[in-house]
This record gives sequence, C-alpha cells and structure tokens, in this order.
Amino acid sequence: MSKSLEFLTEALRRLPGVGPKSAQRMAFHLLQHDREGAAQLSRALYQAVDAVHHCALCNTFTETETCDTCIDEERDRRLLCVVETPADQMMIEQTLTYKGLYFVLMGRLSPLDGIGPKDIHLEKLLARASDGVVSEVVLATNFTNEGEATAHYISEMLKARGLQVSRLARGVPVGGELEYVDAGTIARAMLDRRST
Amino acid sequence: MSKSLEFLTEALRRLPGVGPKSAQRMAFHLLQHDREGAAQLSRALYQAVDAVHHCALCNTFTETETCDTCIDEERDRRLLCVVETPADQMMIEQTLTYKGLYFVLMGRLSPLDGIGPKDIHLEKLLARASDGVVSEVVLATNFTNEGEATAHYISEMLKARGLQVSRLARGVPVGGELEYVDAGTIARAMLDRRST
Ligand SMILES: [Zn+2]
Ligand SMILES: [Zn+2]
Repeated sequence: MSKSLEFLTEALRRLPGVGPKSAQRMAFHLLQHDREGAAQLSRALYQAVDAVHHCALCNTFTETETCDTCIDEERDRRLLCVVETPADQMMIEQTLTYKGLYFVLMGRLSPLDGIGPKDIHLEKLLARASDGVVSEVVLATNFTNEGEATAHYISEMLKARGLQVSRLARGVPVGGELEYVDAGTIARAMLDRRST
Repeated sequence: MSKSLEFLTEALRRLPGVGPKSAQRMAFHLLQHDREGAAQLSRALYQAVDAVHHCALCNTFTETETCDTCIDEERDRRLLCVVETPADQMMIEQTLTYKGLYFVLMGRLSPLDGIGPKDIHLEKLLARASDGVVSEVVLATNFTNEGEATAHYISEMLKARGLQVSRLARGVPVGGELEYVDAGTIARAMLDRRST
C-alpha cells in the first residue's frame, strides 16, 4: 500500500469509533469516489483547529472571544445552566423552555478515567457563577452515575459560596444521556427543576 | 455553533457510515481531546489527495507511475488476478499462494447503482490482459451476486479474445466478501481455481 494511503488510514483511526477496517474503507472511499470530500474535510479540520477555541464566559466552542449566546442581550443573565457538552446545550435550546445563559463543562467528573475538577473547568465555572448577577445555577449534567456525581460535586461547591443551585427534574430517564432524550421530556424536566 | 465547527461536522459526514450524531461527536472529540490528531488527519487527507493516483498497469492506488507489485521482478507475469479492491488484493497476498500480478477493478458491476463496465476500467483490464505475456486471468471478485456477475462479464469478454480465464474455487462461502474471509479458505480456493 502507498505511504500516503497508510498515513491516511492511520490518521482516520484517530476518529472515535473507527477501527482498522473502517479506516481502510473510509480511505479507499475518499480516494476512489470523493476526492472533493477529502479535500473539503482536510480544509475543515485545518480551519477548525486554527479558529475554534473556548468562550471566555461559558467555555463552549467559539471563534470569537465570547460566543453568540453569551453576548445575546435577550438572555436572562440571572440564570446559568451547567451542561456537559455543546450537544447537550443544543438539546436544551430546542426545548424553548430556558432563556438563561450556559456553562459548558466539556466533560464530566470521572475519577476512573482520571478526569478531575480541573479537567472540567470548575474554577472557571465558580468565577462565572460568582459574578454577582447569576442568582440560580441549574445543573443539567446527564443523569448517568458520572453526571449525577458531577452535579453533586458542583452543587456542594456552589452552595458553599452561598449560590442557589437547582437540578433538572428527574423527568429524564435514569441512566439516560441528554443528547438522546426527546425535547418534550427535557422540557418537562426543565419546568420541574428542583432546588438542591 | 461556530461556523468552523459546522463546516467540520458537515465534512465529516462525507465519510462512509458517519451520520449526523457521530459526525458531531467526532468533531467535539477532535477539538476537545485530540487537536494534534485533527491536524494530522488534515495533512494526511491533503497529501493523499495530492499524491495518490492509479497504477498505470494494475489500476491500484500508488504514488508512482507503476506500483511496487507491478515492477517486482520476482512475480510470474503470465498470471493476472482480477480483484475488486486493494483490500482484496492484500488478503490474497497474505495467503502466500499466488505469485502472479494483479488488476484492481476498484469496484464491481452494479447496474442498480449505475456502475457499468467503464466504471470498473474494463478497457484498461482488456489492454492489460492482452499484452501477449499474460496466459491466464484468475477472477477473484467477491462471491456475492454482483461479484459473480462481474466475473461472468469479464470471463466472456476475455474468452472472446482467446484468453484463458479461471475463477477462484468456491471454497469461499457463497455470499461472502473476500475481505472478511480467513486466509486458509482463500488459499484453498486459490489452489482449486477452475477454468471458466
Ligand atoms: Zn459563551
Ligand atoms: Zn500496479
């Protein structure tokens, strides 16, 4: 096999969920049937690595200093919703039940994987939640074991600073991941959120 | 979501077997946990699109005019084995039962998908097989319906030019794809190949 093709197959294996067989199939497919797609993906990767970083306020991916959501004047700045990923934030936005701001952890506490408080930017969250404007932090981490532990940890941390903390109601199925739950269920859980 | 991130998610969907959810997960993973991997994949794609083309003789992917296999002096130039993909060729190489040369169709006849004789380079195969040195063409397309139809079509085409044509013995399970068959089975099928 040609060197460039081997290099490409190796690189495709860096994608999550892609094993040796799929990497090879992807490489052959791109070179045989979709060279324009390959070139486009090359440019997209280069551009994303170059331009995308974390919002100074909410920690999500953005190309500007502060993301569009954080600078939106229509938002209720007294509410701060904590989610694990940008995908979770998008799910909550789709429910149209929440008009506050967000903080995106970009992960969850997972001691077994070596993911501690620093890895999910809890210092940044603490500073953000302590701005004097935020009056309630809504915890919307997943209802998995790790998500629940993360919510518990954050809740204790913020309550120790005198902040009011709530958690999405358990309308979300136990063990469920927000990204895969229907908007109606998330909407109910948002309305039923409880103080912790 | 940021423009670069949307562009990246769209581009990842060009990969075979990648839907919207996996594309998003891949994009987040690369930006959050593996920016070096993303940059490497970007370079690999660029390089492959730039450098990889088809071997002048056997039609496989190569970075040189003629691939390493085709210029290998140790090979028996009287035998030409026709396969659908480079992956199939690699499987046959692993059996160590074949020392001839190859022709890689880069596909198979599939009228329903609009893939006809031109799309699998049958004119190039005909020219290659008619070089006056090749004395037997071994058909090693898959034993699927489309692979069998492809073998039949090629067999008729080459026999009309007076070439001797054989087919891998049906040691390969019917309906099976070479890429997923163990080397021992392919080895038996190679030894038992029959005239068609
Ligand atoms: Zn933001
Ligand atoms: Zn070649």
